[in-house]
Amino acid sequence: MQQSVWRLQKYPTGIPTDKDIVLHQEPIPDLKEHEIKIKTLYISMDPANRLWIRREGSYIPPFPLGSIMPAITIGEVVESRHPRYQVGQKVQGIFGWQEYIIQHAGPLNEQLPLDNGGIVMIPEPEQGCDLIDNFGLFGVHGMTAYFGITDVGKAQAGDTVLVSAAAGAIGSLVVQIAKNMGCRVIGIAGGPKKCSRVVKEFGADACIDYKHEDIHFRLQELAPQGVNVYFDNVGGEILEAAIDNMARYGRIAFCGAISQYNGTTPASPKNYMQILYRELEVNGFLAFRYAEKMPEAVKVMKQWQSEGRLHMNIECHEGIENLLNVFTKLFISENQGKLVVKI
Amino acid sequence: MQQSVWRLQKYPTGIPTDKDIVLHQEPIPDLKEHEIKIKTLYISMDPANRLWIRREGSYIPPFPLGSIMPAITIGEVVESRHPRYQVGQKVQGIFGWQEYIIQHAGPLNEQLPLDNGGIVMIPEPEQGCDLIDNFGLFGVHGMTAYFGITDVGKAQAGDTVLVSAAAGAIGSLVVQIAKNMGCRVIGIAGGPKKCSRVVKEFGADACIDYKHEDIHFRLQELAPQGVNVYFDNVGGEILEAAIDNMARYGRIAFCGAISQYNGTTPASPKNYMQILYRELEVNGFLAFRYAEKMPEAVKVMKQWQSEGRLHMNIECHEGIENLLNVFTKLFISENQGKLVVKI
Repeated sequence: MQQSVWRLQKYPTGIPTDKDIVLHQEPIPDLKEHEIKIKTLYISMDPANRLWIRREGSYIPPFPLGSIMPAITIGEVVESRHPRYQVGQKVQGIFGWQEYIIQHAGPLNEQLPLDNGGIVMIPEPEQGCDLIDNFGLFGVHGMTAYFGITDVGKAQAGDTVLVSAAAGAIGSLVVQIAKNMGCRVIGIAGGPKKCSRVVKEFGADACIDYKHEDIHFRLQELAPQGVNVYFDNVGGEILEAAIDNMARYGRIAFCGAISQYNGTTPASPKNYMQILYRELEVNGFLAFRYAEKMPEAVKVMKQWQSEGRLHMNIECHEGIENLLNVFTKLFISENQGKLVVKI
Repeated sequence: MQQSVWRLQKYPTGIPTDKDIVLHQEPIPDLKEHEIKIKTLYISMDPANRLWIRREGSYIPPFPLGSIMPAITIGEVVESRHPRYQVGQKVQGIFGWQEYIIQHAGPLNEQLPLDNGGIVMIPEPEQGCDLIDNFGLFGVHGMTAYFGITDVGKAQAGDTVLVSAAAGAIGSLVVQIAKNMGCRVIGIAGGPKKCSRVVKEFGADACIDYKHEDIHFRLQELAPQGVNVYFDNVGGEILEAAIDNMARYGRIAFCGAISQYNGTTPASPKNYMQILYRELEVNGFLAFRYAEKMPEAVKVMKQWQSEGRLHMNIECHEGIENLLNVFTKLFISENQGKLVVKI
């Protein structure tokens, strides 16, 4: 039995190419005691994946050369030599770009969630939900958006909230959550098509097209009293424009900086001093910090979903051979929603 | 009647010179109805004064050219045409580099503290206190140090706290307050003399001499588990070294960036991305934000002072003609304590 596997050949400089991440055919090993075999169903394409393969490291050390290209995936157990897992069970984990995963599922009597090979069991989806919601609405994207705008950004009803990459997986959720909380929401996205969706589909009060409009001018026009919360997904010049338009005591929820992930020396905002001048709060955060509070957040998000006030737009592609092409869409702003590849 | 007055002639580039801030002899105008005449007793020399005369502005717009050089001063009413003020009353305000101030003291029935010409009445000093404590321990320096380490930095007993400019007016207070709160405290200062005082006089556990030691190496040695709270007074390369040595979830209380005040384009920390990677919180702040809570803080500080656990080292100079020379000491790290000029 052979399978397709993408491996990290060298650390990319710039947008990854097929010289950096290479498709191999490899044999699938036989199962050993306490191992399970997972058939990959969906692979999530996320900007953070690019951070994980930076030679310089990021919030984790870089994956070693030769590793399977890391990504969050959802799969189904197709063979099991571990009593905790039955064939047909759906699972999730950071398993990467491959068709089948052979994973040691930990000792038999182990209760700790992190000592089970990183395997997270997924319940069969409820009515109106989808398997993909496990890494969308109710997974890391949803939790990042929810806690980023509530706990980190401390948004209050009436606040002016600015969100970059507002048509993206996390940004589009931030727009909806902030609206549900009673905020005034301004999105930033690339091109008229995305901007139109940010307003009409996700409900923002306005959206700035950074490819065709002057962000500074538009921000002054749209937020003359200043921005209270900026949810930053992009970094770079858009971050600088946001800082220059923050209200006194404004909060910046620093979630990502996709404009900087492909560079070797990520840029810092030139107007860092404004953090002092305007008494801003800049908070870098990862959703994992809020693990204990997640069940409560999922409850709120499910309620909003059932009321038609929250949804995630999925752009689903197919075929393991297309992974790299789909992944690069993230960095040229070509995707029109959360990118997923069905295997 | 003539008096000495320093006026802002042009916005400085670099450390201010006598081409930028110029000493004049000017007549003292007669008092009009509701005005008072204040004789300057002490002038406080603070890094923030340099921010106030930046052409580019800062947290306030730049003082206009021709203004009296702004600074916090303490004085005594020597003539009054306002019933609220009697001769002999001590007052404080941002009145600047001059011997006498003629100030309109606001309408008679006005209760608002800010509509009285910026004049703050000072009680006669208690036993063991000094007039200068009004802009030292119990004034803007003390409040900045106190709220910066408590509310902004959220320091807890057992935390490792790092303070730059640790021999300076605010830094030396931060060291003592953090020690009083049960933290482990590492100072950074310039030269062995200052470093020795930071440890022996102010009680820090260690002090790094940035002029002669490798900050990165020393920080790794002194804080192998990382820094929980960094109280930043200096910005620049020291800030970068601090960021690279922060613990996960660390807080940076961004109080100032004296290394950048004389440049036209203040530098940003090159490792801004670490704010995300380490999930740091960077908070720019000014003490005024905590105005309502100040009386409580003063109470705590007075208690510490009476127990011998808090003091401010004053470096007092004399003579209005020496103001500019004394002021520039701040930027070449020559002062050995809070700089004050007695008039």
